[in-house]
Amino acid sequence: MSKNIVKPSILPGFMELTPQSQMLFNNMMDTVRKNYEKFGFLPIDTPVIEKTEVLLAKGGGETEKQIYRVVKGSTEMSLRFDLTVPLARYVAQHYSELAFPFRRYHIAKVYRGERNQRGRFREFYQADIDIIGNGSLDIINDAEIPSVIYSTFKDLGFDNFTIRMNNRKILTGFFSSLGVEDPHVVMRAVDKLEKIGLEKVTEELLANGIDKDSIESIIGFIGIKGSPAEIIDSLNSLNIEHEVFLEGVKEIGTVVGYLKLFGVPEKNYALDLTIARGLDYYTGTVYETILNDYPDIGSVCSGGRYDDLASHYTNQKLPGVGISIGLTRLFYQLEEAGIISSENYHLSKVLVIPMEGYSAEGIQLAAKLRAEDVYAQIYLEDAKLGKKFNYADKLGIPYVAVIGEEEKSSGMYTLRNMKTGEQTRLSIEGVIQKLREIH
Amino acid sequence: MSKNIVKPSILPGFMELTPQSQMLFNNMMDTVRKNYEKFGFLPIDTPVIEKTEVLLAKGGGETEKQIYRVVKGSTEMSLRFDLTVPLARYVAQHYSELAFPFRRYHIAKVYRGERNQRGRFREFYQADIDIIGNGSLDIINDAEIPSVIYSTFKDLGFDNFTIRMNNRKILTGFFSSLGVEDPHVVMRAVDKLEKIGLEKVTEELLANGIDKDSIESIIGFIGIKGSPAEIIDSLNSLNIEHEVFLEGVKEIGTVVGYLKLFGVPEKNYALDLTIARGLDYYTGTVYETILNDYPDIGSVCSGGRYDDLASHYTNQKLPGVGISIGLTRLFYQLEEAGIISSENYHLSKVLVIPMEGYSAEGIQLAAKLRAEDVYAQIYLEDAKLGKKFNYADKLGIPYVAVIGEEEKSSGMYTLRNMKTGEQTRLSIEGVIQKLREIH
Repeated sequence: MSKNIVKPSILPGFMELTPQSQMLFNNMMDTVRKNYEKFGFLPIDTPVIEKTEVLLAKGGGETEKQIYRVVKGSTEMSLRFDLTVPLARYVAQHYSELAFPFRRYHIAKVYRGERNQRGRFREFYQADIDIIGNGSLDIINDAEIPSVIYSTFKDLGFDNFTIRMNNRKILTGFFSSLGVEDPHVVMRAVDKLEKIGLEKVTEELLANGIDKDSIESIIGFIGIKGSPAEIIDSLNSLNIEHEVFLEGVKEIGTVVGYLKLFGVPEKNYALDLTIARGLDYYTGTVYETILNDYPDIGSVCSGGRYDDLASHYTNQKLPGVGISIGLTRLFYQLEEAGIISSENYHLSKVLVIPMEGYSAEGIQLAAKLRAEDVYAQIYLEDAKLGKKFNYADKLGIPYVAVIGEEEKSSGMYTLRNMKTGEQTRLSIEGVIQKLREIH
Repeated sequence: MSKNIVKPSILPGFMELTPQSQMLFNNMMDTVRKNYEKFGFLPIDTPVIEKTEVLLAKGGGETEKQIYRVVKGSTEMSLRFDLTVPLARYVAQHYSELAFPFRRYHIAKVYRGERNQRGRFREFYQADIDIIGNGSLDIINDAEIPSVIYSTFKDLGFDNFTIRMNNRKILTGFFSSLGVEDPHVVMRAVDKLEKIGLEKVTEELLANGIDKDSIESIIGFIGIKGSPAEIIDSLNSLNIEHEVFLEGVKEIGTVVGYLKLFGVPEKNYALDLTIARGLDYYTGTVYETILNDYPDIGSVCSGGRYDDLASHYTNQKLPGVGISIGLTRLFYQLEEAGIISSENYHLSKVLVIPMEGYSAEGIQLAAKLRAEDVYAQIYLEDAKLGKKFNYADKLGIPYVAVIGEEEKSSGMYTLRNMKTGEQTRLSIEGVIQKLREIH
């Protein structure tokens, strides 16, 4: 019988990790989830496939070009490209079953047929939280969101990061006060400041018909730096009597005022008047998060306040505020930069290795350890001892316990530390205690 | 501006839960994962979309009809329909990076365009473990698998369940010893015994050209009942000198012998000579798991031993043994039968409700609790107290703490039990301690 071998490979642009890296990735995902849950966010899980008309209700653009269509039967179906559209659909559909403010988290894969390039993935995890109000949502929520970001990134092992905030109303109001017809034109240019520099931004503004005086004002405006209090003072001293502008300044003042109460240290947040984020979506507070030691990674957690989540699916007004972490990209970048490493990462604390004829004793030891919630793996194959030790090393398992006649007759076990080679002779209680202490 | 409202709905055959039920589902998934990890199984996560030629390497049949095709660009892509094919591809592809025996778990969604009927889902979670050997894999592994099933279902809250086992070699060997040309024909018929009854099985065997004497022997064979030891005795006393049969009997004897050492109680396993499972896949031990109080649910965890995992992707011989739990279907059935309920299930231990003007104190209390790992949610909206209490009830949050002038000035907090109405006045340390005790 001749056999056809199909080359085992995955599609380009898809991430697949070794088990070792996967453990580290899952640990990151668990940390994010735990923090989201700690603040009262509830889990949802929506279908990966949805009706195309639902996913594209907002109307095409870039999204439509990147969407993966699914074919089976006659219904037009596609894979979700973010977790926001499914949230909007979910809230509109289950409106009467939900308690508002509705706090949900959603950690799941999304799909985008992006151009294939290093570090860009076509299947990736997003980890989102949103707080959705029914008709209205207090501005204090906008201050709780950064406290979730803070708590999460601290737990992920970071210390030196900055949550940059702005308020879209400040931008819209200020540009309108200059008589700029379409503030989006200015925002789009200003948003690129970090990437393309001041000169190119000026060129773009001129090309869009903004007059020189206004450009000067805009440059002065985006040049406002300092502590949050100083920036708010500077904004107030501009003496702009534009309603939207004033509302924005008031909101950001409230958010900053509450941040301290939420326990976010001053060194971990800042105001930045150049941040605009998604142009046609956010309407108030916006967030970006920068790892200060690795600014090239860009924002690792972004989001903001929006007026109306689900206007394409319901007439209910549902304002909200939320953030998203692109977990797959973040993990890839952290590993590439050597910031995290899966080396020596492990789940099993010990590899139990029975000598020939002592598998019964080995199995019983492993069973006892697991009964005490100590993760333990047993090596059941026939092989030389060196190969078995090598197996423990390869899997990063920190201890091995070899089981033979001595262990059987004495009831004492020898734990070998696979890093130092150090051996400790212990009773079963001693083994349990020692292995419990490892992290 | 006229607005087009798209009806918010999902595709038929897809499960979507309320946040309350989702918490319960996630808890079930976490329990399964924890047990898998405790036994040294490592996580993998493969792309949901794969090349169609990879997914269908084994060749079509029912699978091909149920597959969801994905369209984007020119590559033929599809959604995975199980986790076994991706495992085979993964092991073949990453062969040189893996340590064997390779123990992996995989908990993820798979897709099958099944006929739409109640309790059948087109997107569902599978929770699989497999142990893959490089060239060979010791039979003791076949005894460890039931110990994982036992540990998992105990932790899921079940006590009265039976892991039914058989060995395909016993069946193949026995039917061959009768001179049956294609033992699969008999197995296919016998496999239906529980569903269609003895009479119909006999009819099917006759229709397939099995002679009456053989049928009588087969009926005698599948009538063998008793404890594992009794069944093995009966099999031995059949005095069948067929090599494959004898190997099967020896294997099942070894497995049963080791089960006790692995800590599986006798009441939780049984031998059942009528079990065959997937016909063209398993080659040795096979498993089914029945919740004895709910036999109608059918097997909740099935699997077995196979000779060669990845023959379509590599010439390496990779024998293995594994099981799968269909989590979505299991959850649906348990909830439908009222065996599990999400009522009063919660993540947040307390809802902090600040009175008007006391949000600062409320926020600080919530922040302190979270810093001590107590899950706490704060209610920040302007609303009447009754509405806020109702919110806690709706979310199943067990305690509320109202924060006002008294709490501010005394530093003492009143926890109200939302079920009993009982109120307890406590210091912050007391609040932390009390909330930590709740499960």
